[in-house]
Order: sequence, then C-alpha cells, then structure tokens
Amino acid sequence: MNKEKKLFTPGPLSTSKLTKSSMMYDYGSRDPLFLNINKQTIQGITNVIKNSKNLITIPIQGSGTFAVEAMISSFIPKEHKVLVAINGAYGERIAKICKYKKISLKIITFKETEAISSLRINKELAKGNYSHLIVVHCETTTGILNPLEEISNVCKRNKVKLLVDAMSSFGGIIIDYKKVKFEALAASANKCLEGIPGISFCITHKSVPKNLKGNSNSLSLDLYDQWYTMKLTGQWRFTPPTHVLLALKSALNQLKIEGGVKSRNKRYMQNCNFIRQEMQKIGFNCILKDSLQAPIIVTFETPRSITSRFSEFYNRLSNEGYIIYPGKITKMNTFRIGCIGNINLRDFKKLITAIKKVIKTMNLSIVY
Amino acid sequence: MNKEKKLFTPGPLSTSKLTKSSMMYDYGSRDPLFLNINKQTIQGITNVIKNSKNLITIPIQGSGTFAVEAMISSFIPKEHKVLVAINGAYGERIAKICKYKKISLKIITFKETEAISSLRINKELAKGNYSHLIVVHCETTTGILNPLEEISNVCKRNKVKLLVDAMSSFGGIIIDYKKVKFEALAASANKCLEGIPGISFCITHKSVPKNLKGNSNSLSLDLYDQWYTMKLTGQWRFTPPTHVLLALKSALNQLKIEGGVKSRNKRYMQNCNFIRQEMQKIGFNCILKDSLQAPIIVTFETPRSITSRFSEFYNRLSNEGYIIYPGKITKMNTFRIGCIGNINLRDFKKLITAIKKVIKTMNLSIVY
Repeated sequence: MNKEKKLFTPGPLSTSKLTKSSMMYDYGSRDPLFLNINKQTIQGITNVIKNSKNLITIPIQGSGTFAVEAMISSFIPKEHKVLVAINGAYGERIAKICKYKKISLKIITFKETEAISSLRINKELAKGNYSHLIVVHCETTTGILNPLEEISNVCKRNKVKLLVDAMSSFGGIIIDYKKVKFEALAASANKCLEGIPGISFCITHKSVPKNLKGNSNSLSLDLYDQWYTMKLTGQWRFTPPTHVLLALKSALNQLKIEGGVKSRNKRYMQNCNFIRQEMQKIGFNCILKDSLQAPIIVTFETPRSITSRFSEFYNRLSNEGYIIYPGKITKMNTFRIGCIGNINLRDFKKLITAIKKVIKTMNLSIVY
Repeated sequence: MNKEKKLFTPGPLSTSKLTKSSMMYDYGSRDPLFLNINKQTIQGITNVIKNSKNLITIPIQGSGTFAVEAMISSFIPKEHKVLVAINGAYGERIAKICKYKKISLKIITFKETEAISSLRINKELAKGNYSHLIVVHCETTTGILNPLEEISNVCKRNKVKLLVDAMSSFGGIIIDYKKVKFEALAASANKCLEGIPGISFCITHKSVPKNLKGNSNSLSLDLYDQWYTMKLTGQWRFTPPTHVLLALKSALNQLKIEGGVKSRNKRYMQNCNFIRQEMQKIGFNCILKDSLQAPIIVTFETPRSITSRFSEFYNRLSNEGYIIYPGKITKMNTFRIGCIGNINLRDFKKLITAIKKVIKTMNLSIVY
C-alpha cells in the first residue's frame, strides 16, 4: 500500500486514525448492541444543529446526493411548485433531481461567483405560487457561502418551506435552527463531520415525517418509510453500512472533544485564511471575494502556465503527499484546495512548501 | 469496545481482519490512484460470474436493495409489463419497488417453503404479454434456492428479459452466464463476497447500458447515467464509499486465494450441512427439505419452549460470542443461522456447543 497522502479535497477527505480504526469490528445490523450505537449516533447528528431540541435525523445509505434526492423525493408532494436557487453545480443537480421526479419547478440563477440574493428570492416568492424553495448552503463548486439566515427569513415571510443542501457546511459552520427554520436539511457523514463516506441524512422537525407518506417515488429513498420503520423497530429498513456508522460515531465524538462546531469552524477558518493569503502571495488568484468565501474549499484560477500542464502539477503534488482537487466552475480554468478534514495549519504550511517546490521544479511563472 | 462476536447472519457478516484493515487509508475519490483501484475492483466483481467475457458491472452506493431498485428503475421502461415471481420477503420487496415506479406488473406467488416453479412461470409467460421477469435467486427469507437455469430457459423460450436479485447467492453459488442469460443481475459487496456493506451493483451485457437512457425515475439510482459517466471519466458520479471499495478489493482477492466461487461454495456447503445435521440432532426442525436448501442461511422452526424466551436465548448466545438471526417468514415462528462470511466448521462446532450450553442453562425442552 502507498504511503497515505493528505487530502485537500471536499470529501472524501483526510480522517483521523481513530475514525478509521473504529471500523475494525463487525456488528450484526439487527443486533441490540448495534442498534444502541445506531441510536446514539443518529442523535449525535441531530445535536450538531444549534437549538436542535425538536429536530430528528433520518439517515439513508449512500452519498450526499442520495440524501438530497431523498429529501426532494420525500418532502415534496408531486403537485407542488418549487423554486430552485442556483449558483453552482450542486444547485444544478437539485434541478436535475426535480426533473427526474417531474416536479413543477422554476429556476432562479446567479453567477457562480455571486451569492444567492435573498432580495431576488423574496421578489420571486412574493408572486405567491411557490410551496418550497431549495437552496445550497455552501456551494462546493466555488466554496461560496449563501446567506442562509436571510433566505430563511424570506421563506418565512412568504410562507414557503425551505429545503437546504448543507452537504459541505454541516459540522463546519454553525446552523442555528432558531435562525434557519428549514423544513428539511440534507448532509452527509464525510464532509465537516470528518467521517467515512457511505451515510447521509436529512434533519427535520419531529412533527413533520408523519405527513410525508406517499410522496416518494423511490422505495430506497423514501424517508417516510425509513423514519417509520426506525421509529417502530430501531432498525434501518435495509442493511446499513455498519462500519461507516461506527466511524461516524467516533467522528462525532471527536467533534465534541474538539469543542463542537464553533471550534471546528475556527480551525477551518485558519486553514482557509492561510491558504488564500499564501497562494495570493505566490501569485494565484482566488476567484471569490473574502466576504463570500466559506471556510470549506477555496477555488483558484489556474495560471496560463499551469493550464496545459495541470496533470503534471497535480501528480507532482501527489508525489509530495498532497492531493488537491480539480475545478468545477464553467467559465474559467480553476482548481480547488479543501480546508476541511483532519488537516490543520501545519499541513497547510507543508502544502505551501510543496507547491513552491513544484512551481520551481516545473519552472512555472504564475501569470494570468 | 466489546470483544468481537462471530456473526451467523446473512450480511453484514463476519469479515476477515485483512478485509477490515484494508480500510485504514483515505483516498481522494477522483484521484488517479483510487480510480485505478476502482477499475480493478469493478472488473473483479464481473469476473465472479462464470463466462463473464462480455459482461460489465455498474456499481451503486447503498445496500443491496438500492441495486435492486436501480436495476428495476433503469432496465424497465415504464410502459412495459413485468412478471414478478415471489416466494419470500425479497420477492415482495421487488413488487413494492415496481409499485413505487408505477410499473405495470403481475405477481405470481409460491409458498415460502416451495421453490419457484419454472413450469408455472412458463405457463404465465406463454400468454405473451410480458417484457420482463424478475426473480430472486436465493430467498434469504428461508434460505431456499430457486432454479435459476430453468427459469432462464423459460424466459429465453418466451423472449422475456430476466432480471435477477442474486443478493445472497452471488459469490457463494456459481452463476454461469452461458446457462443463465440474465438481462441484469443485482448483488452487493457484503454477502458471499465477504466485503463491507455500502456498495452494491448490477451486472449486464456490455451492449445493454447504452439503451437504458431515460428509463430511471431517480438520478441517484440511474444506472445509465452512472455507466455513462464512469465510461467517460472512470469516476463515480457521486462520492463513492472509498473505504468500502478498498475492503471489497481485498475481499475479492481473498475469494481468488480461497479458490474462487467453487471453493467458497464448498465451505458454505460444509457449514450448512453441519448446522442442519447438528441442530436436527438436538431436536430443531429445518423448515426446508434438503433438496431446496441453498448453502446461505438455514431457517429453523422455533420450538414452543423458546418462542416466548427467544430474546433470552438470543442474548445468551450473544454473550457466548455468537450472533444468530431472527426469522422472517410469515406463517410460523422461526430463527435463522447464516452459513456465509468468514466462518468455517470450527466456528459452527463452537456455535453448536454454545447452543447446547444455553439450552441446558435455560432448561429448555426442544419440542414442537
């Protein structure tokens, strides 16, 4: 096996040894010992939200997209009218999911480097014919933070239900249920919770799930059915990824020990500020303004000298032990460096040293 | 952490230390190193089928049910007419999935202790208005083996496409593509492959996927879209459970070292024959005739003396280090003992000793 590398990616990401080693145990998925761990872990997910007293978590197998689709499939009755606000690829994916379910939707689009405007959302919602708004909290496409509290207020004012894709922010940015009155919020184990990929989930008010019967067009992704069975038996309907759940239990415990979301956010902010500053010193352009940057992932415009040699740049960094992430925005060549996972300032200092070394070896000039 | 117990369950099941320890590594899911492992592993799944030269595997996140639903969702255009043959809970689940997608279907039901009859299937298919038959190979509900080759012949004769849920047989019972001409076959990593739960898959002829565009009613479960993206980029569309994939790679390698499906089948047969014989000696009834029993899981009728004290019986065995499995059939009280996973005759001998000890301690008489 190769020497383990540090991942500067938005998930799967670098996890602690403790998290990984917690998977060295086989549990029966219907065994009381496992069900007890399962119950604690699911409660642990709920507790990540601030003021979560009346909230519950419904877990689902699969990646984050599975939870987003399960949320859309289960929370939106077919005849309702949905507004999707988009400023990146994950917003586009939400619209795509809605089309699979033939949900009647309108799309409101923003530039990828521009936050979603609650004013424009308000104007559209005020027309009065929407039941739901779906929005991404932090768009991993660029790393931009959308103003979730403002958007929530606008939804409340217009009596529209808010569904949030909080995939890359959950656990890394405080979400306060007193300030963000979501109808449902989807996220996954392997982003800021720093768990292993394979489990995702939706969080909602405990009074909601009983009303979701018959909405979903998929058995596997039916959150009503999952909630009902789990309430009745304490069990997942279908084989859960037991080992991934053990890792999540350990990861949630480590989040607590770190000091909760507030402390984790502080570490990610340090990572993010450092990498932005140091890369800019080298000559790289950050594509987002400071004020729009979430401490999750930073997008850099790829200098002309690197564009045609990006594979070499990537592979040389990989050989040094550092995995960066390709870009995803549509309008220019970019690459990304993640700020999340079991990485800290020490790792970022080493990364910067490696980047400087590779630039020198490849004899690159950082110009646009 | 508790001392690890031996699981006599149908999955998740006991896996080897080697399989679990292969998960101690974080890979970036879009990193070339991971993509290479991914490619090898997916090819390794295909190779489990005998005469698999023209077959390909499309993996999907989630439990086995996710693959079964992905298969039904992606392989059956909505307007087609489907026959579902049922002799247990997993057949029932297939019908349920079809109803979610509003597929026009007819159900043909057999007793849970009776194999699916290819004669009756033939009679129904001969009516001429079916496009697809869906059937479970080994019904985990009872452990019964359905005659897949005969059923395949009947489908061929009637020009009907065969979709197989081979969840609990794949890797433990030889499936020869020369003899079983399935249109698609679904299974998962954590049954007879002895991997970790979190990945499932569909196998089909390489010429088929290009025709599946637009069939699926779910983005997450759209095998066309998954196939197309993977063909183009070598990547999963959405974050794969990277660690579970590493475990699967290791598990497939161990299957090879054991001598392939033939040798594994032999070990499972030994386990199965031993537990049936020894339990019958104690006085337990096997609910299936020898000739119908697949070497996957054995269902025992629960004696009257145990029925009301089953939790105690289960917990005492658990305290001895052995996890058995509750029953699932509808007509009588049963429990199950799995024959699959990283367990062999030595483990079954210890299990029998433990069962005798618990019977003695609880002062049970094994009568019906």
